[in-house]
Amino acid sequence: MKFFWMIAAATLAALLTLGAVAATPKKTRSEKPRSELRHVVAFKFKDSVKPEEIKRVEDAFASLKDKIPQVQRYEWGMNNSPEGLNQGCTHGFILTFNSEKDRNAYLEHPDHKAFGALVKPLIDVAFVMDFWIRH
Amino acid sequence: MKFFWMIAAATLAALLTLGAVAATPKKTRSEKPRSELRHVVAFKFKDSVKPEEIKRVEDAFASLKDKIPQVQRYEWGMNNSPEGLNQGCTHGFILTFNSEKDRNAYLEHPDHKAFGALVKPLIDVAFVMDFWIRH
Repeated sequence: MKFFWMIAAATLAALLTLGAVAATPKKTRSEKPRSELRHVVAFKFKDSVKPEEIKRVEDAFASLKDKIPQVQRYEWGMNNSPEGLNQGCTHGFILTFNSEKDRNAYLEHPDHKAFGALVKPLIDVAFVMDFWIRH
Repeated sequence: MKFFWMIAAATLAALLTLGAVAATPKKTRSEKPRSELRHVVAFKFKDSVKPEEIKRVEDAFASLKDKIPQVQRYEWGMNNSPEGLNQGCTHGFILTFNSEKDRNAYLEHPDHKAFGALVKPLIDVAFVMDFWIRH
């Protein structure tokens, strides 16, 4: 019976270890920084702007997350607020950075500058706010 | 030895179950929907508004996430954008909802209405945009 208890104890130890490993969050999640800097952008396009020009802006903005490694997350969408406080803005974007240094590197990046040059003549309003998130 | 293997098999089964339970994401995480509706808000306070009035607004807004169960996530922060496109807004907020129905329930909730009545006389600009996030 001594042999039995040795086997049982070894099995128990091995399976508890397996359980602990399985329950440990994946590396990518545990390494996610606690602080996130949100970069909120909204655009109102000029009335004269054509749908294909708007599409070009959407694609160009989305491409920045692949061109500029400091962009940690990129979200966007079309306004559907019923409150009427969007100042005519139809397009909203939320980019996330890990530091103000990264945000500044994004702002100064040649591809972001080129994007700004593309967008500027097409819009009436560009609203931008950045903040470190609190809860 | 037959008894030994029965005990060993039972131990194995019990511990595999324990491991599986430990590895299962918590209910709140697994139930998180893939789609999220962002509700972005920005305030510019009037120059005459006192710091304690601003603090009252900050506290009142934060309390809505506890009072209104439809609010899935609440983030806020102080603008630090160097771009000067924030229209004087100092405070940014991002609330997350799971549906337009939930967002509308929040807008119509008596506690949100009371918050609106508190804020309105204190601000020059309230900017609001809502959108379903795309990536």
